[in-house]
Amino acid sequence: MTQTAFLFDLDGTLVDSVYQHVLAWTDALQTEDISLPIWVVHQRIGMSDGLIVDELCRMSQRPTDSGLAQRLKSAHAQAYKRYANSVRPLAGAAQLLAYLDASKVPWAIATSGDLESAKPNLIALGLDPKAITLVSRSDAQVSKPDPDLFIQAAGRLKTPINRAIVVGDSQWDMLAAARCGALGVGLLCGGHGSDELQRSGAVRIYDDPFMLLQKINELTPDRI
Amino acid sequence: MTQTAFLFDLDGTLVDSVYQHVLAWTDALQTEDISLPIWVVHQRIGMSDGLIVDELCRMSQRPTDSGLAQRLKSAHAQAYKRYANSVRPLAGAAQLLAYLDASKVPWAIATSGDLESAKPNLIALGLDPKAITLVSRSDAQVSKPDPDLFIQAAGRLKTPINRAIVVGDSQWDMLAAARCGALGVGLLCGGHGSDELQRSGAVRIYDDPFMLLQKINELTPDRI
Repeated sequence: MTQTAFLFDLDGTLVDSVYQHVLAWTDALQTEDISLPIWVVHQRIGMSDGLIVDELCRMSQRPTDSGLAQRLKSAHAQAYKRYANSVRPLAGAAQLLAYLDASKVPWAIATSGDLESAKPNLIALGLDPKAITLVSRSDAQVSKPDPDLFIQAAGRLKTPINRAIVVGDSQWDMLAAARCGALGVGLLCGGHGSDELQRSGAVRIYDDPFMLLQKINELTPDRI
Repeated sequence: MTQTAFLFDLDGTLVDSVYQHVLAWTDALQTEDISLPIWVVHQRIGMSDGLIVDELCRMSQRPTDSGLAQRLKSAHAQAYKRYANSVRPLAGAAQLLAYLDASKVPWAIATSGDLESAKPNLIALGLDPKAITLVSRSDAQVSKPDPDLFIQAAGRLKTPINRAIVVGDSQWDMLAAARCGALGVGLLCGGHGSDELQRSGAVRIYDDPFMLLQKINELTPDRI
């Protein structure tokens, strides 16, 4: 019997917050007169803030000094606050986590966001941030697509990383999973194309947490 | 020699306005206490307002009476105004149209939006709305994925529809092209996955108008 554990991304995977982040980054770029197509910003969501800023500046041929990076990150955080009140849990997210609990399948959340912005989303999911296994940006030296966040999450669950299933909505989650020998499962509810997820190593793709829960025997046949 | 004409979608194809429409629809739905995942709203962009409302209400199991439909459309139009000032032309859009003019390849714009919301976008592209061939929502009985808008645009250019190339960012443009025997060319800059576009009949897929212009000999070899 092969025991497994689930490592979940948060934004776009358990809560419906990707589009708000997209527009918040776009607003932030405009404060520095950087104009990039919005779909290009969308594709970057799921990386750490630092990597997003680095990539977007490189694309727009602006040298990234630490002052600019810091201003962009602050402007994004500020703009996101304006959009954050429309963020809702994704269909089936709370039920999926409750089902795993009831089935004694260990799970954790590994987010490249900081604890501060994760908290309201966890509460909206009916979770107590102190009662769950949560790895956020400040717990890792580097963030997705580096696998460090997922490796730490698996470590806290005392599950070997190659027994873990990483569930995420972006190619950065899938790439991180591939790099640490975890299994990548993609969700479409962050608005990324299934071809992107598949090309980055996803072995299964579902619409959202609700559909993953319907088909969970594909992933954890060992429970029954 | 096979002469051709280009029929362009506007939102997401020539101007970077899809994400603003996505959040404007999401805001509109919230005014009626309808909660749908944002990626599902994104997938619907490019249909006419009437069809979007009809589909989103059906998905949320709300009966669509004409009062609700009208309120949602107005709320969307109202919300879009708040986002519209961040809309920019997409990379290469103006250059592509200028290149077609210089090459004497006829082109038109066929948008499922109304003339009012199209105008500022056309002006941002450096176009005079009165000097171009433009078909908008009020010119057709029905809108995408029905091909009527594209058929009318081809008619105004006096080009047989099966000699036309439909350029759009959504599967609704591709489906409309397929239904009238035009050739569908997809652009990724509206944030839709290439698999969606391909599955709906796109014979070529480029990132944006800039990349289409780089590779235009693939589509109009008859010019050289």
